[in-house]
Order: sequence, then C-alpha cells, then structure tokens
Amino acid sequence: MIIEKDALDAFNERFRVKHARQLARLEEELSDKGIRTQVLINRLQDFQVAIPSWALGTGGTRFGRFPGGGEPGNLEQKIEDIGLLHALNRSSGRISLHIPWDIPEDAARIRNQAAAFGIRFDAVNSNTFQDQPGQELSYKFGSLSHTAPAVRRQAVEHNLEVIRHGMALGSKALSLWLSDGSCFPGQQNFAGAFNRTLESLQAIYEALPEDWQFLVEYKPYEPNFYSTVIQDWGTSHLFCTKLGEKANVLVDLGHHLPNTNLEQIVGILINERKLGGFHFNDSRYGDDDLTVGSIRPYLLFLIFNELVDGIRLAGGDSNAYAWMIDASHNVKDPLEDLLQSVEAILIAYAQALLIDREALAVAQQENDAVGAQQLLQDAFRTDVRPLVREAMLRSGGALDPIGLFRELNIRRRLIEERGMSSQATGL
Amino acid sequence: MIIEKDALDAFNERFRVKHARQLARLEEELSDKGIRTQVLINRLQDFQVAIPSWALGTGGTRFGRFPGGGEPGNLEQKIEDIGLLHALNRSSGRISLHIPWDIPEDAARIRNQAAAFGIRFDAVNSNTFQDQPGQELSYKFGSLSHTAPAVRRQAVEHNLEVIRHGMALGSKALSLWLSDGSCFPGQQNFAGAFNRTLESLQAIYEALPEDWQFLVEYKPYEPNFYSTVIQDWGTSHLFCTKLGEKANVLVDLGHHLPNTNLEQIVGILINERKLGGFHFNDSRYGDDDLTVGSIRPYLLFLIFNELVDGIRLAGGDSNAYAWMIDASHNVKDPLEDLLQSVEAILIAYAQALLIDREALAVAQQENDAVGAQQLLQDAFRTDVRPLVREAMLRSGGALDPIGLFRELNIRRRLIEERGMSSQATGL
Amino acid sequence: MIIEKDALDAFNERFRVKHARQLARLEEELSDKGIRTQVLINRLQDFQVAIPSWALGTGGTRFGRFPGGGEPGNLEQKIEDIGLLHALNRSSGRISLHIPWDIPEDAARIRNQAAAFGIRFDAVNSNTFQDQPGQELSYKFGSLSHTAPAVRRQAVEHNLEVIRHGMALGSKALSLWLSDGSCFPGQQNFAGAFNRTLESLQAIYEALPEDWQFLVEYKPYEPNFYSTVIQDWGTSHLFCTKLGEKANVLVDLGHHLPNTNLEQIVGILINERKLGGFHFNDSRYGDDDLTVGSIRPYLLFLIFNELVDGIRLAGGDSNAYAWMIDASHNVKDPLEDLLQSVEAILIAYAQALLIDREALAVAQQENDAVGAQQLLQDAFRTDVRPLVREAMLRSGGALDPIGLFRELNIRRRLIEERGMSSQATGL
Amino acid sequence: MIIEKDALDAFNERFRVKHARQLARLEEELSDKGIRTQVLINRLQDFQVAIPSWALGTGGTRFGRFPGGGEPGNLEQKIEDIGLLHALNRSSGRISLHIPWDIPEDAARIRNQAAAFGIRFDAVNSNTFQDQPGQELSYKFGSLSHTAPAVRRQAVEHNLEVIRHGMALGSKALSLWLSDGSCFPGQQNFAGAFNRTLESLQAIYEALPEDWQFLVEYKPYEPNFYSTVIQDWGTSHLFCTKLGEKANVLVDLGHHLPNTNLEQIVGILINERKLGGFHFNDSRYGDDDLTVGSIRPYLLFLIFNELVDGIRLAGGDSNAYAWMIDASHNVKDPLEDLLQSVEAILIAYAQALLIDREALAVAQQENDAVGAQQLLQDAFRTDVRPLVREAMLRSGGALDPIGLFRELNIRRRLIEERGMSSQATGL
Repeated sequence: MIIEKDALDAFNERFRVKHARQLARLEEELSDKGIRTQVLINRLQDFQVAIPSWALGTGGTRFGRFPGGGEPGNLEQKIEDIGLLHALNRSSGRISLHIPWDIPEDAARIRNQAAAFGIRFDAVNSNTFQDQPGQELSYKFGSLSHTAPAVRRQAVEHNLEVIRHGMALGSKALSLWLSDGSCFPGQQNFAGAFNRTLESLQAIYEALPEDWQFLVEYKPYEPNFYSTVIQDWGTSHLFCTKLGEKANVLVDLGHHLPNTNLEQIVGILINERKLGGFHFNDSRYGDDDLTVGSIRPYLLFLIFNELVDGIRLAGGDSNAYAWMIDASHNVKDPLEDLLQSVEAILIAYAQALLIDREALAVAQQENDAVGAQQLLQDAFRTDVRPLVREAMLRSGGALDPIGLFRELNIRRRLIEERGMSSQATGL
Repeated sequence: MIIEKDALDAFNERFRVKHARQLARLEEELSDKGIRTQVLINRLQDFQVAIPSWALGTGGTRFGRFPGGGEPGNLEQKIEDIGLLHALNRSSGRISLHIPWDIPEDAARIRNQAAAFGIRFDAVNSNTFQDQPGQELSYKFGSLSHTAPAVRRQAVEHNLEVIRHGMALGSKALSLWLSDGSCFPGQQNFAGAFNRTLESLQAIYEALPEDWQFLVEYKPYEPNFYSTVIQDWGTSHLFCTKLGEKANVLVDLGHHLPNTNLEQIVGILINERKLGGFHFNDSRYGDDDLTVGSIRPYLLFLIFNELVDGIRLAGGDSNAYAWMIDASHNVKDPLEDLLQSVEAILIAYAQALLIDREALAVAQQENDAVGAQQLLQDAFRTDVRPLVREAMLRSGGALDPIGLFRELNIRRRLIEERGMSSQATGL
Repeated sequence: MIIEKDALDAFNERFRVKHARQLARLEEELSDKGIRTQVLINRLQDFQVAIPSWALGTGGTRFGRFPGGGEPGNLEQKIEDIGLLHALNRSSGRISLHIPWDIPEDAARIRNQAAAFGIRFDAVNSNTFQDQPGQELSYKFGSLSHTAPAVRRQAVEHNLEVIRHGMALGSKALSLWLSDGSCFPGQQNFAGAFNRTLESLQAIYEALPEDWQFLVEYKPYEPNFYSTVIQDWGTSHLFCTKLGEKANVLVDLGHHLPNTNLEQIVGILINERKLGGFHFNDSRYGDDDLTVGSIRPYLLFLIFNELVDGIRLAGGDSNAYAWMIDASHNVKDPLEDLLQSVEAILIAYAQALLIDREALAVAQQENDAVGAQQLLQDAFRTDVRPLVREAMLRSGGALDPIGLFRELNIRRRLIEERGMSSQATGL
Repeated sequence: MIIEKDALDAFNERFRVKHARQLARLEEELSDKGIRTQVLINRLQDFQVAIPSWALGTGGTRFGRFPGGGEPGNLEQKIEDIGLLHALNRSSGRISLHIPWDIPEDAARIRNQAAAFGIRFDAVNSNTFQDQPGQELSYKFGSLSHTAPAVRRQAVEHNLEVIRHGMALGSKALSLWLSDGSCFPGQQNFAGAFNRTLESLQAIYEALPEDWQFLVEYKPYEPNFYSTVIQDWGTSHLFCTKLGEKANVLVDLGHHLPNTNLEQIVGILINERKLGGFHFNDSRYGDDDLTVGSIRPYLLFLIFNELVDGIRLAGGDSNAYAWMIDASHNVKDPLEDLLQSVEAILIAYAQALLIDREALAVAQQENDAVGAQQLLQDAFRTDVRPLVREAMLRSGGALDPIGLFRELNIRRRLIEERGMSSQATGL
C-alpha cells in the first residue's frame, strides 16, 4: 500500500499551527545562543538511515516468536514497506538487503521499484551463520574460519555472489557479520581460526569493486557462547588493517560486553580513519536489538557527539558512513518500531549538532569537567523535536509519523492485503 | 536402542585393571588424610540427576539450528534416550517432562516404560512462554502476569493440567519458569505485574497436592530484554514466602547477571530452608546453557560446597533437592553433552565431599583466609575421577560412558533407526 | 563564608527576563497538554536532598587522591558548605552525618548553626568498615558479622552511639552500610555470617527509638571482592522483614551488578512498603560515585517514574523517603559536583511528574509498548529546566547556582579562608 | 631475615617420603599416557615469576587499609622479603621495581644484594597516576595524555628516569600502566588524548635501549570511571604497532570488562607476535587483585594453554615473556598470598603442559567439541601438585612453602624485627 498524499497533507495541516508555534519557541531559544536552525534542519534532512530488509517482520528469540500479521512476503513487499516508512519520515531512503533472504531475481525491476519510492540500495549483507535448504556444506562449525577448506571456499563464494547482487542493484558496500567461533574451550584454535579467516577475507576483498567498502562487524558472543573469531573492535580493526583501505569497521551498538565505553571506540576509529558504518539499536543486557534510544538515549547522544566530529572530518557529508538500523521487533509493530528508531537517531543527531564545540574544546583544554558536562547536557536537555519534525515536513513527510501510521490503520490494511500469517524472511 | 549388557561388561573389562590401579592410588592418597572412600562412593551412587525431556535434541539460537540427526521423535524415544544415558552412567535415573512438548497420552504405559529403564519422573514443567497451535489466547504479552484476566486464567489452567499429568506419572513437583516481563520501559507496570502474578501463583499453589513442591525459577532477562517479573532470587524468594511452605526457589546456574555470587545465594537459601532445586549448566555471558562444568568448574565446586551443607541439613539425603540438567546442545551430540554434564556434577560433588569441614570451620572462625583457601583447593585439586568411575561401575554402568557411547556408534545407530531429520520437540 | 543576599539578587536580576521568557514558553507548551505548572513547581520546591557530611571534600581511589583545596576542616565548616549549597539551590536543606568522622561535641550549638542555614539533620550513618585510631578491636575481618562476639558487640555499641548522636541532633533514622564480607572462597561461612549479622542487627533495632527508621543498604562488592554479607536487595529485604516495620531498604544507585534493572527493584520495594531511602549517584562500571545523572540520565528518570508512584502512595509527601547524595568528587570541585547532582535529581523528578499516568495505565493495560514508550519519552524529552529554575528562584535560590558559584569565586575564597591543604574527614 | 638451610632441610625431610610416594603415583599415572615427568619438572624449574616491590605490604581499598605488621620499610627489606619467597619456592627469582616508590640510591649495592638471593631485576614500572611530594605539576587530569605540554614533558621525563634506574640495575624492560582518562562524558576529547599519548609514548620509545622491551598495559576503568585512554587490548596493540618492534602488549588478568574472553586475546597477541608479558592475579568483579587462581583456576589454565603455544613459538624459552604477579593483599599475609599465587601459576602451567596437543589438533580439525573438552579437562583434572613440589625441591626450595613459612613463624619474626607499624611504600 501507499500513503496517499492527500491524507498526509490533511494530517499535517491539523498539526501545522501547533508545530509552527513549537518551532518558533525553539528558534527563539536557540537564537539566544546564536544558533541558526536553518543549517541544522538541512543537516537533518540530509541524514538517511538504511532499513534492513529483515527488519520488517516480527523477530523472535530461541524461545519463540509471536508474529503480528501483514508482514511482507517477498522483496517487493519489503521495498513497499520501506517506501511507507520513507513516505512518513523522509529519512529512511535506503534499504540494506540480506542474501539469501532477499535474492532479487530481476535486479532492474527491483531497482526501479525502489527508485519510485526514493529508495537507494545500501550495503548488501551476506549470511553464513545459517544453513540454507539444499546447501552443500554446513556452517555448523563455521564458515570463513572453518577448518575444512571446502567450507571456506563455499562461504567465500557466497560473499562473491552477494557482491554481484549488490553491483546489480547499485550497492557500494559489502557488510559482513561473521558469527564463527566456538561454544567450548578447546573446540577451536584461536590463532588458527584467525589466520584462516584472514585468508578468506582477503579472497573476498580482492573481488571487491574499487569503489566499494568492506564493512567488517564484530560481536563478543551469540550465537557462539565461548569465543567468536571477530570478538571486538580490536580484532575487526586488525583484520581491516591487514586487508587494506577499502575495509572498515562496522559498529553495532549491541555488540559489546557490559559497560564498554563504545563512544570512545567510535572516536578512536574515526581518528584512525577506520570507521565504516553503524548498526543502530539499543540494549541493556546483550544484543537485545531493541528500539534505538529506548534504553540509553544519552549514550546515543554521546556517540553522535563523536560522529559529528567524524562527519566534519568527512567534509560535512553524513553519507560518508553507512547508517543502518539493526533491531528485532519482538513485541512491537515492526514499522512503528522503525519509525521510533529513526526519530531517536535524528533527535540524537540534532542534539549533538547543538553542542557548542568551541566552548567544549576550551573546557577540555582546561580540564573543566564540570563545564564540559554543562555543555553536553545543555545540548542533550534541549527539546529538539520541533527541528526533527520540521526537517521531515520540509522533505515531504508527516509531522507525526507514528500518529499518521495509526490514524491510517496501516497495519490493519496490510493484514487485510497480505493476511495474518504472511511472514517475512529473516530471524 | 538398548545397551547390551555384554557389550558393557566387555568394555569395562578392558579398563578394569587400569581403573583398579587408579582407584588404589587415590585410596592410598586419601587414606593418608583419614578419608574412607567407601562412604564417598555410596554418596555418589545415590546422587541422581534428572534429564529434561527437551534436552535430547539439538538446541539452537535465534540465528539458527544445526540438527545432528537421530533425535527422539516422541516421548517413548526420549525415555529410551535417557535409558541409554542411565545405562551408561547409572546416575541419570530421572526424567523431567515439559508440557505441552511431551504430553503422555497413556500415562501408565509411559510409567512402565520408564520403570523398565530404572527411571523415575522428576518435576514436571509448564510452558507459557510460547503459543501452541490452536491456543485460544496468546502469551505474546505475558501469561500469569498478563493484564487480561482471561489470559491469566488460561495460564493458570495450563499449570493445573501439568500437575494432573505429573500426578499420573508419579511426579512430586511442579517447576515453573515464568518468562513474563517487558521489552521496553513503560510497557509494564512493575507493581501491577507482581501483584497479578502473585494471584495467579496462589491459584496454582492451592491446586498443588499436599506432598508436592512448587519450584519457582528466576531469570534476569531473555526472552524479555527490559524487565522480567521474577528477575532474581529475591523476587522468587518473596513469592515463595507469600505462597507457603510447599513453594521453594529453583536456581538455574545461568540465570544471573554478570559476576553474581551465586554460591552465596545457594547458601542463604539453604539457611532459610527455601532452596528447592537446581538447573545445572554452565555459561560465560548469559543463559548460554553450555555443558555443566565446561567453563567455570571451580564455581560448580563452590556451589557443591554449599550443597553438601544443605544435604547434611536434610539428613544426608541428596534427594531432598531436585537436581536437573538444563542445557542446550547447539554443537555437541546431546547425549555426549549430557554424559559430560553428569560426570562434571559428580566430580564436583565428590570434591566437595573431600573438604575437611572441621578444619574449615576452624579456619573460618579464626579468619584464616589463606588456610581456608588451602582447604578448599586441596579438595578441588584432588583427582577424584576414580571415585566417580567406581560409583558408576558398582551401580552397573560403564567405566567410560562417552568412550563406550562412541565405541558402540550409538549416534550412528540412532540415525539409522530414526533418520537424519527426526527432530525432538523443544527449543 | 556566606552568600550575600544582594549578590544573589543582583545575579538573578540579570537572568530574570530571559528566564521568564523560557518559563513562559514552557508553560505554553505544557498548557497545550493540560498541565498546570504551578503544582509542579510546588512539588519541586518541597523536594529536599540531604548532603552527606563526607561529600564536601575531594574523594579518591586506592591509587591516589588529588585534593583541590579549601575543604571544610571540621563539622562547623561542613555545615557552612551545605549552607552555601542550600543558599544557592534551596533544595539541599538536609545534612547526613557520618560517625565517627563528624562527632558533634556540642549538639545544641551544631543544631542551632544548622537551623540558621535552614538545614535539618537527616539519617545518621555508622562506620564499621574502617579502624579508628585507638579502637580496641579491628574490623579487618568484619564487624556485625564477625566471628568473635567481642567485635560484634563493639560494632553494635558503635551503632548505639551513633543513634545517641542522632537523637541529640534531631535525626530520625540510622543508615547502615555493612561492608562485611570476604575476599576469598571459604574465608567466610555464608550462613554463619548471615545469622550473626541478624543477631547484631536485632540488637541495634531494639535500641532504635520508636519514631526512627533503620535504613539497611546493600552492595554486591567492594571493599570485599568475593562476597558481601548484604549483597543485594533480596538480602537487605530479608533482613528488614525479620527485623520489623522500622527497618527498610536503602537503595544506592551504584550498588548493583552490571545491567541490573534497578527501577524494577524500586517499584517492587515500594509495592512491598519496604523502600526506605536513596543514595543518589551515577556510574558505568561499579560503585563509581559519579555526579547524579552524568552517565545514565534516562535511568534516573525511570527511577523517578517509580518514585512518583511511591510518593503518591505516601500521600504526596516526598519526605516519606530519605533522599541523599552519595558521590565521590575525584576530579570536580565537590560543591559544583553537588550542585549538578541536585539539579539532575530535580530535572528527573520534574520529567517524571510530567508523565501522563492515566494514558500510561491505558497503554499498559492494552500492552501498547510503542504507546507507553511515546508517553515516557515525551516527558523525558521535554526541557523542564525552566521549572527547576523557577522553583529555586521562588524558594530564594539562584537562577543558575553553578554560574553564581563561579562568579563569586567561592572556591578561591574558601581556599583563602581555609588554606590549600585543609582536608575534610572522609574517604 | 633469612631461611636457615638446616631448617629447610629438616622440614623437607619430614615430608620427603610422603612426597616421593605421591610423585611416584603421579609418574605411574602419566607414564600410562606416555608422558615423561622429567621434562615437565625441568620446565617448571625454569619458570620464574617476578614479584613486584609494592606487593610486599598490605594493600587497601579507598575505604581503608588494615596493615598486618612487619612490612618491609625500604628497598633492602623488600629484596629480603623476595629473597624469603625465593628461598621457599625457588620460583620467584625476579623483582619488579616501581619508581618512585623504590628509588635505588646505590644501584650497585642493591644489585649485589639481590644477586646474593638469586634475584634478577625484571621490568621497571613508572608511576604517573599519583602526585609525589614536591612534584611540580599535578597528574590530577592526566600525564602522558595531558592537555598541557609541560605536564606531558614531566611525565615523559619521569619515564626516562625510570629507564635510567632500570639500566643501572640490569632490567631489560619498561612497564607502563597509564591510568589517564576521564570521569565524565565530555571531559576529554578521545582522539585528542589518543594523539597526545602517542606522541608521549614515541618520545619514551626513542629513549629505550635497543635490547629493551616497552610493555604497554591496558585497563578499562579505575581510577578513571568514564574513559581510559588505553582502555583495551585493541588500543594497546594499536599504540604498540605505531611505536615499533620493541613495544608489546602487557596483559593484566584483572583489566577486562565482565565476561571478556581473555584467553583468546592472549592467543591472538601471540599469533601477532605482540604479547609482551603478564600481570597475574584473579578477580570476579573488576581489578580485584586477588590471589592468582583463587577465583577462576580454569581460566588460568586456559590462558596457559595459549602460553604453552607462545613459549613453543619462542623456542621453548619461558623467559621470552615477562611474568609478574600484580595483586593486592588486603586480608591475607602478603608473603603467604604470594606463595599461593606462585604455586597456582605453576600448577596451571604444569596442567597446560600435560595437554595432548596432537590429539587436540585432530579434535579441532574435526570439530569434535566433546573430544577437545575431554582432552583439556583430562589435563586440568590431573593432580599435578607432586610435579610442582618436586620442581621446587630440586631447585632447593621447600616441599610446602606456606607450611614452612608458618612453622618458622616468619611473620612474627618480621614483626619483631621491623615493628608492627612498619609500612611498605605502595598502595
């Protein structure tokens, strides 16, 4: 289904006066500090977050899954769903495919369909953490790090196939999450696994087009519960350094041990010019894959504090990094969840843009911890929502995406269209 | 399939001399300390660990499952598998059923089948963390704590049904793991959920036969990733206190936050006469459900140090508590994994029995931390495996259960019998 | 030193117009939602946070301490410092003494001095985690849980002495943090330590005046690194239940294992009528004792979401619980740090008061996780600082306490008065 | 004081027969597996662990310190204490000095004194985490990463001075633990701090003699509680790579976030030829600095499983890495604690040497997780203490170092000699 422009306009019209008043109040507030909102709004409009194709269905845990109905049953319907999101918030104009869950049989047609929604193809993702029906060799004991050369070859070849699909769609990056590892001490030789993985990664790297990036993710545990070959940013960075300039580290907010200072990791990767991109989500315990900003919004803000520096280093272009949401929608409507996530990202970005960086640099130089905190919290405590709404409005979106989503009964209509038991490929 | 007595005897015969020498050496060693092995061996023979019916198949994670073949396809085959284990180690003469995964259609027949293998029915487990086909109301948002009275009633009624199945089989305990909770701040009112849960638990408690125990488990997170109604031992203990004497806390080794001193929890629950039973497994990160003793064997020993006190308080009867393995066999053969787990439990128990408790009490009284550590580690560092082997041998088991399992090609024969794609109900 | 009223008025005058505009904008915003700010401001004015007497000096770690100068050298100067804070923010009109660091030699005089600053005496704290010069028996191996009866008696007697000091000053609560525990497995018998502690606590409880509260704190580790007698809320709650109605649990935000859902603990303790009070601070790793709200402001808000329910249960009286800051000022000026902490507390309280509780109850009843999150985040994202400033202003405080503190060069003047090496008793 | 050879011989004589029996039993056991104990015993005799000069006194926490008396009051006495340890176990023939706590005024004399005890000088340690009396500029806000160039210069110069002291004593390595970091978000610019630190490290590196190593330690938190400049192995490794071949990573067992797979870190550093050395201790919560092997002996074993590979890569020379104990003796006698630690290290090393590496390689190649675990646990469960005792005996040490320490009343005699209040410099 498609959001009718009339419905959207009518919805916005009802909130336009209230929004204008809120925006005016905020502009007054910010102008006292010498901040011009125009630039901020432009920055927010430019910021596009990719939606992964697997995030449109209900997720689950090993204990069960409670689907909500109306899930997209094929790639076309997934693009439709992202089209819906993008029509509502004008900030999710990217899709990140996952092979083999979303093999595009007719790439040109799929590309056109996406273009009609204003959607581009972000990084393509390979999957060697599951066995597919008919697959010759099993990944039960690993893929790129497997002790058997034939399994490694199969996994490398799968990645090359993913690159080919990506090229046909206009992607410019391969994103790799390697779940390989072990569940018990002794099961795997750490050094051996590292060296075999390096060899496999090099084979993939060599096949990568010149203008592509190779995004290498890390994760401490799950689905392996003793060791993981690429367990932390240090390992990922080590591989990327050995591979070459096209290889960069991908940070998933949920892939860290308890209490990790991950904003520092982001800052150091930016400093080393080795940050490739992000998987946004939130969590308290492990890789909980909750809605972005739902648990630790201040952490998200602190990360964006680093990213604003990174974007500045990249000449102000927020497209210099790959931004993607990677969450699991176990109890929320996936589309509502994604709308909340994108909004949370834009809010954190807007707050981080408000930080008085000159004053912060002075406070840091003088080791004024109190002053530095005041500066950060002044930005964080500011209610920037009117800026985010204005950015969406100007780009043609809704003033309240979730409100409109609910008012239009979109989920009910999707269920009517696709049925209660339609199920998206993915987890 | 059944282990042929001849094969077992022949196998043992080959190792008997070597074993006798090893046992003799250990007896010599222990007799220097005034320890008589006869008592220890009797204690080990008495110790029986329940095998949960769902642990006989390959487990998985939300990312996938890699079945190994030959899994038991029904309750009869599950009992057969536990019969195999028990024939090998003579220490797993208990089965713990999970309803609705294992509804016994003909209880008397099932009971007879189990009895033929020397197996008794341990605690029965209810399941309100999944929706079953045809189930009227969904547990997506909880069961015993649900905001809707009808869902709570359905969940209570399910527990009553589980009790009825248990009564038919000769069980004497209902084991409840309540996964209810929330994934996002605000989703659930903590106090409301607690109070509704209490009401539901009371309804179940009242239906419990007089000679039954109600084992109430706790877990900090998963499958809910923000809050869990029964999040820790304090909450479980609070519920049990409100319920009455039949209600006791069940401790699962993997259900704790990082760094929890869980041996202290065990000690305090014993002191309060509120420890009901155990779910054994091991883990490094979360509820990893790995082989018992594979990651933190010293922790297991420290827990048994407490349990030996508890068993003494219970008049020396190790059956005073419910012992069960609760693990997930993602990369190991489930039966081999269970054999390793039971052996690890018996080793830890044997080591704990070796502790010189009088000397320890003196060291504790005098705050001699060095001396107390010497005493514990002296027991832990002793190689007690000959005792465990002797206990199994005397009870009619194998001197090397895994060795015999492999030599007899049991998995291959199970696959031939049941097929490669036979799949056990469970996770 | 004392803040001159003229200086304060002049300072406020300069910001009054700007503040009035900001408040007006917020009132406009809130009135759209039907919220009347008058009530909120009254609530904020009522909220008083106790300052512990030991928090006025520079704190340190086991690796060192870097004092900043001008610290209060005796109890009179400590009260003076809190007088300064209270003059600036009118929200810290409580002092919490720590015996033996602050033995009031002339209680009447000290009481008068405090009264002159508008300061009352909150809970008194005992200290049996250190040995004092001339102390007969050492607490190296515990105090209330010690294996030697004489040490336990000494520790009990110390607590009784603390109660006597508190009575002389008008305190109404004894706050107990018991650091007893062990550093090595085996060093301490868990059950024995528990039972001895219970006996000691009962002796103290019996000596407690009828209108006093006994606040029992918990902590998982530090200064003991293997076990702590009162390791978690469950243990604290168990002791309080055994003691009686006057005994209640004290929650310190930093005294939890990684990832603990502590807002749920708060909610459950309120539900059980067993919450006594709070030690506010913030942390990422352990008991880091950082400025309140500096690391996890959303967590602070979620706790206040529970506390607003608790205060309502207590008939709307925020004095029903003991509120205290407990932080260590290693790199910040202690007074600036405390001003930031109190402000963060008031902001979180104000945000929590904004939550639309009726709508939240509906969302919870309907398991609308998306809607519930929207309601919480709507409150959290609102910039409530004008309300906090207005509350301080109306009570006679400064519109920007830290700004005025710096403008008046208070630290420099304290150093001139007291010297660079004046050192507060405490950690 | 010095252990009299006669007393030692007499002591050993009493246990010689029992020990010989135990050793014979173990040799019988191992010879069944084709293992010759002679080689193992030689390996154990070669293994020397450095004792840090600050570990000879009672340690403390920020909450207090409970000294035990008889602590060494100067460097000579510290060497004497290590001489005592080495006389007892013949495995601690190294001392690691900490400047400025142990500035050797007459290097030649100190060197001779140490040589007389058979002790060599291991890595020298610098200290820029504390301010020393009379120090010009403060390290309150950092040292090598400080924003002020003058502070950085002072800290670099201090390290150069430490190198000079080390050269005079015959040390061959500088060990650096940089505690620099921040306590609050915003206080420090991560990239800026990294770049300034790199510059400082390069200045130190350039001054390092050609045959020296530069050991760069990492730690996630404490004494800074928000960020630490060298927070993890990845950061340390990154610095070492930029510095050059002489710079290598130093791993302290307690310097990791909860649940870190640190044996994998060790394995990867060995694989990269970037492991420099070790700080041994044990812990459950953070940098608890407990006796080695007292909490997680299996982890220690798994680390030695990696180290055996590393030593083999280094041509079998266990001196290829720097081994040091780094613990804090809060409740134990420091010397007894160190004796327990060294014994635990040797036990883990002996167990790791027992692993059947050929069979393990086969199990790993075939992904036989059960088999690999059997091989590791077979080694771990073996009681190797007779081997460790025999190694000490052959080298001239005591069969039971702690037993002899207590029998000779060494602590009492040290107190008589040095007094009850003699206090070692250090923490």
